[in-house]
Amino acid sequence: MTQSKLTQPSPPSHTGNGADVPVDLSATTTVVRGIGRIPVTKVSPVIEGGAYPAKATVGELIPVRAKVFREGHDAVNASVILTDPAGNQTRHDMTPLPPAGLDQWEAWVRPDAEGSWTFRVEGWSDPWGTWLHNAQAKLPAAVDIELVCLEGRDLFERTAAAADEAGDPIQASILRATAQLLIPQRPAEDLLDVANGTGLAKAMRKYGPRELISPTADFPIFVDRKKALFASWYEFFPRSEGATYDAATDTWTSGTFDSCHRRLEEVAAMGFDVVYFPPVHPIGAAYKKGKNNTLDATDKDPGSPWAVGSPAGGHDAIHPDLGDWESFDRLVARATELGLEVALDFALQASPDHPWVIEHPQWFTTRIDGTIAYAENPPKKYQDIYPINFDNDPEGIYNEVLRVLRLWMAHGVRIFRVDNPHTKPVQFWGWIFDQIRATDPDVIFFAEAFTKPEMMHALGKVGFHTSYTYFTWRVSKAEIEEYMYELSRDTDSFYRPNFFVNTPDILPFHLQSGNPAIFSIRAILAAMLSPAWGVYAGFELFEYEALAPGREEYLNSEKYEYRPRDFEAQPNLNMLMGRLNEVRLAHPALQQLRQIDFHLALDDQLLAFSKTDGDDRVVVIVSLDPDNTVETEVHLDLTKLGLPADAPLPVRDELTGATFTWGARNFVRLNPAQPAHILAVL
Amino acid sequence: MTQSKLTQPSPPSHTGNGADVPVDLSATTTVVRGIGRIPVTKVSPVIEGGAYPAKATVGELIPVRAKVFREGHDAVNASVILTDPAGNQTRHDMTPLPPAGLDQWEAWVRPDAEGSWTFRVEGWSDPWGTWLHNAQAKLPAAVDIELVCLEGRDLFERTAAAADEAGDPIQASILRATAQLLIPQRPAEDLLDVANGTGLAKAMRKYGPRELISPTADFPIFVDRKKALFASWYEFFPRSEGATYDAATDTWTSGTFDSCHRRLEEVAAMGFDVVYFPPVHPIGAAYKKGKNNTLDATDKDPGSPWAVGSPAGGHDAIHPDLGDWESFDRLVARATELGLEVALDFALQASPDHPWVIEHPQWFTTRIDGTIAYAENPPKKYQDIYPINFDNDPEGIYNEVLRVLRLWMAHGVRIFRVDNPHTKPVQFWGWIFDQIRATDPDVIFFAEAFTKPEMMHALGKVGFHTSYTYFTWRVSKAEIEEYMYELSRDTDSFYRPNFFVNTPDILPFHLQSGNPAIFSIRAILAAMLSPAWGVYAGFELFEYEALAPGREEYLNSEKYEYRPRDFEAQPNLNMLMGRLNEVRLAHPALQQLRQIDFHLALDDQLLAFSKTDGDDRVVVIVSLDPDNTVETEVHLDLTKLGLPADAPLPVRDELTGATFTWGARNFVRLNPAQPAHILAVL
Repeated sequence: MTQSKLTQPSPPSHTGNGADVPVDLSATTTVVRGIGRIPVTKVSPVIEGGAYPAKATVGELIPVRAKVFREGHDAVNASVILTDPAGNQTRHDMTPLPPAGLDQWEAWVRPDAEGSWTFRVEGWSDPWGTWLHNAQAKLPAAVDIELVCLEGRDLFERTAAAADEAGDPIQASILRATAQLLIPQRPAEDLLDVANGTGLAKAMRKYGPRELISPTADFPIFVDRKKALFASWYEFFPRSEGATYDAATDTWTSGTFDSCHRRLEEVAAMGFDVVYFPPVHPIGAAYKKGKNNTLDATDKDPGSPWAVGSPAGGHDAIHPDLGDWESFDRLVARATELGLEVALDFALQASPDHPWVIEHPQWFTTRIDGTIAYAENPPKKYQDIYPINFDNDPEGIYNEVLRVLRLWMAHGVRIFRVDNPHTKPVQFWGWIFDQIRATDPDVIFFAEAFTKPEMMHALGKVGFHTSYTYFTWRVSKAEIEEYMYELSRDTDSFYRPNFFVNTPDILPFHLQSGNPAIFSIRAILAAMLSPAWGVYAGFELFEYEALAPGREEYLNSEKYEYRPRDFEAQPNLNMLMGRLNEVRLAHPALQQLRQIDFHLALDDQLLAFSKTDGDDRVVVIVSLDPDNTVETEVHLDLTKLGLPADAPLPVRDELTGATFTWGARNFVRLNPAQPAHILAVL
Repeated sequence: MTQSKLTQPSPPSHTGNGADVPVDLSATTTVVRGIGRIPVTKVSPVIEGGAYPAKATVGELIPVRAKVFREGHDAVNASVILTDPAGNQTRHDMTPLPPAGLDQWEAWVRPDAEGSWTFRVEGWSDPWGTWLHNAQAKLPAAVDIELVCLEGRDLFERTAAAADEAGDPIQASILRATAQLLIPQRPAEDLLDVANGTGLAKAMRKYGPRELISPTADFPIFVDRKKALFASWYEFFPRSEGATYDAATDTWTSGTFDSCHRRLEEVAAMGFDVVYFPPVHPIGAAYKKGKNNTLDATDKDPGSPWAVGSPAGGHDAIHPDLGDWESFDRLVARATELGLEVALDFALQASPDHPWVIEHPQWFTTRIDGTIAYAENPPKKYQDIYPINFDNDPEGIYNEVLRVLRLWMAHGVRIFRVDNPHTKPVQFWGWIFDQIRATDPDVIFFAEAFTKPEMMHALGKVGFHTSYTYFTWRVSKAEIEEYMYELSRDTDSFYRPNFFVNTPDILPFHLQSGNPAIFSIRAILAAMLSPAWGVYAGFELFEYEALAPGREEYLNSEKYEYRPRDFEAQPNLNMLMGRLNEVRLAHPALQQLRQIDFHLALDDQLLAFSKTDGDDRVVVIVSLDPDNTVETEVHLDLTKLGLPADAPLPVRDELTGATFTWGARNFVRLNPAQPAHILAVL
């Protein structure tokens, strides 16, 4: 509550002596290589030639793909060599994908520990594959039988020696015995039986020779903790929770860190696991925004929390109205007890009253008339915000940002929701993430980048763990399917989505009808399509009034005023949201990004998709029509679930508990009151 | 004619002392970089991360593309920095392509000298762009007029100083004078006029500040001589030209290097500029192939030239029946006089009688039974061919191949047509090309790779200058359009096509009707679609008989027997082929690979496309139906020709000399006797 907050603890001891980190702005370098003896090209996931690690989380299935091919007729094969953070290497056989003419190979690997991994692809010549192909072609044609037998015996015996060396005398014995079965005088079909034996194949795959091994470079993968991928976010303004209004004086008293514990409990009860707070710092007085983003604020208006900084302090301080470090620590502690992680907004900009403006004017842009440049989108002016200039004194500002982050990290904040990261240099973020990852790899950064695709992707590449998305503007079936294919197949190695149904800045047009059914539909879509989803308070109460027609902004936005709510008011979506989070937790399939497939529904208003993770399979059928009953046939491609195409499909609807037997073709009827089936395959 | 040919000249002096070149098989390395201050990603053309140079020829327009973007609202810009073989750098402004949201930038550059070039893309912050955008937004809104003027004057004056420094006092004066026009008291529309002035823009684009310049790595481009891209090939067997048959003894006498000069003259007269000969080396006797690829050859059968090697010599010797080094030199000299380059077949395989088999058995594969492995596609055997093993003694075989190539190069062969390169290690070819390019960058290698796309592309990437293609199997309009888009847009930086209408190995199904119209159509398509095209002798005589139904091989293939022809027999395509080559020579547009667009023809049997190079524009309309008249409308998108959409289009038909005025919509009627219009835009 006092300015002494500026002298809060220096960064925790593991950051060293607190001295500035030298800012090396030379670009990251890495080495890529040409085509080796066995060509391996188009390796993925490789981010910017290997300059940045591909993304993975613990236990996540990651596809490694490459084109692998060779000259002539001899067999080619390929493996992935995975190196864990401790330096242990494991080999994973790759599989050729049809059609063979495209030379596409693939292996799915599942890293099991956090940290810096690498992988490489090794193409190799496969004498076993060559021999087997020859045997399968020549034995039935009675060609070269003696030679085939001689070569087979030699190959099996060499492999037996390798099995011995690997301490596997059983396989060695099997191989030696099989070699003895290759007697040229035997009938060709008997010899073919020997060649095609499964036991032989297993032993040969394990110990058979790999020749002309041609490795690619080792490419980095960083394995984050699972929450970077799978999380359920809830956003509320602490100042609204417990805020009180005194009609006599027409004055609000702010809610505080202490007065919002009850909301924490309710949020946790609905199964959310991340609670996200807008900035909690002192708010500037200069050009403070009033209700509905007006310019005539009074002392009674609380101002926008994103106008960070006042004489009471900047990014390293707490707004006096909210509490102090002790009450912040209590809030984090209570959240932790409840299984909630606190995500703090990190808005790198300053109000004109921010202490940085006086102490470090070089961190801003001074215009030719001597004034400090405020934010603009000409001719619009945002005079309450001074953007930071990262180029005048990178050493100074970079290290200051690092100091501030480490301060909050030391107070238990391990997730930052970064405001408008696309208005800061991409390179700056890369540097920050390099520093943080070196000491605190569990810290997660969530990009609020609503901008063009290249920038959103670049932010992911340099290390943002997760990002807001275009989900808000993907409404029709075709839009959703196309976007999910992009997210799950094209950008999955560097861009992790978090599907927010709304934000304080965005009241999507489709919610502005206020029809509760569309709120249910969008919650179900977000929670089922994406491993991470999020809700901003008020959504569950069907808040829908826009600032003006044609605008996707809230009327009476909480950004500019206190908005205490009665979250138990009826109707609400508390129950549905809680159930969705329960179902997400119960089903590993819903925690994956990549394992999603869409199925044919004979109506454009019905979306059908399935998600899988091994034996866990979930089929989701959602009506996209909040106004009408939709009834049609849904054709499930059961092979996408790893089942026979005509298998009976016993399912349980996770929303109603009802059980059915579905199959490849199913009649579905959904209506605004029950707009979805979430079917667990039993 | 004798074995002394084995002691032919050692490689020319510029290859050094003739000592073996060490074979370094470690993969090529290069450095790629992360995202810089101004992000530049997805740079092209970059082959395998920069491990190999992208392809270009002298005078060819090459697109350089990248995604360039930045944080915030300030203007971004980009340039290509091109470095020529002498180290001179030139800057080429990039242009943003619509839609802006995709951040795609492009510049077309035209290297003007052979050799090793590099390019990099520089993203930069553009104060002029930022100021202009601000001025255009703020002046009409009467916002910050004084500041806009102040900033503009400062910017122009700084730029004037830069113009002075560059020795351009005129531009400096213009800039200083323009600065004086920015008087805040003037009406906003006048100030806006000043800001929007073209003279100002030119001066600012030339000398304006470029800040935060963020270069990518320098990526290689190798600029070949033009023939690597633009060439007209003709293939014939020297042994057939002048071959005579003595019925009394049922014996053939081979044609010779000397007896085929007349055919050279005829080929040159038709405007071809490369003449390609199948292998001219001694042919093995072991398992020699008889007529129609039979196994019962007699002494009277000449054998397949691709079964290289006999006691008379190997790849470094001349078949005694064809002549000797002197007559070979005479042949090359005569070809050169006629404007023809000789392309020699380079078939890296040996007959069992090849001297290498005795002298270097380690260059082949010895099987477990002690025999040398012949070629196989199990269960099929090709016992007349020993494939080379490149892994037993790479130092030996690599250097031997280099020696042989240099031997023929010293005798004037600067183009090699490489037989089946995809049955040899890709890495081997990369090594060979590195050696040859270092001393003889004019030598061109043409890949006979009819195989899977990845291999064909890899061969191009490691340095094959040009390649056979799938053109033979692209027959329908949809197939041709799709393939041309791939060749001109997707693979253009590493894969140069040469469209052969037939080869001794391939008599395409579509020619097997023998209908002369389909021969015309395919010749026109090949010659007009691709900058390089080729014909194998007999095509112009409509030879069409297949070995067997369902086979794309010639009956009585010249590979296994003498085939002297009467090339003046009527009807023939001599005149059409000559005219096509004339037209190709007259029109730079037809010498380009990338500048091709397809237009709408309202009939699936009519193909319409245009090619351009600057002001040279050619529109080609081809009927794909050899049996029927096709009449329909053709809608030309004239903007693809760099013309207004509704421009009148005066054209001359290069096949008939007739002139017309075409336009955006045209009625076309073509028939088997006149299956195409080749329209030069006047």
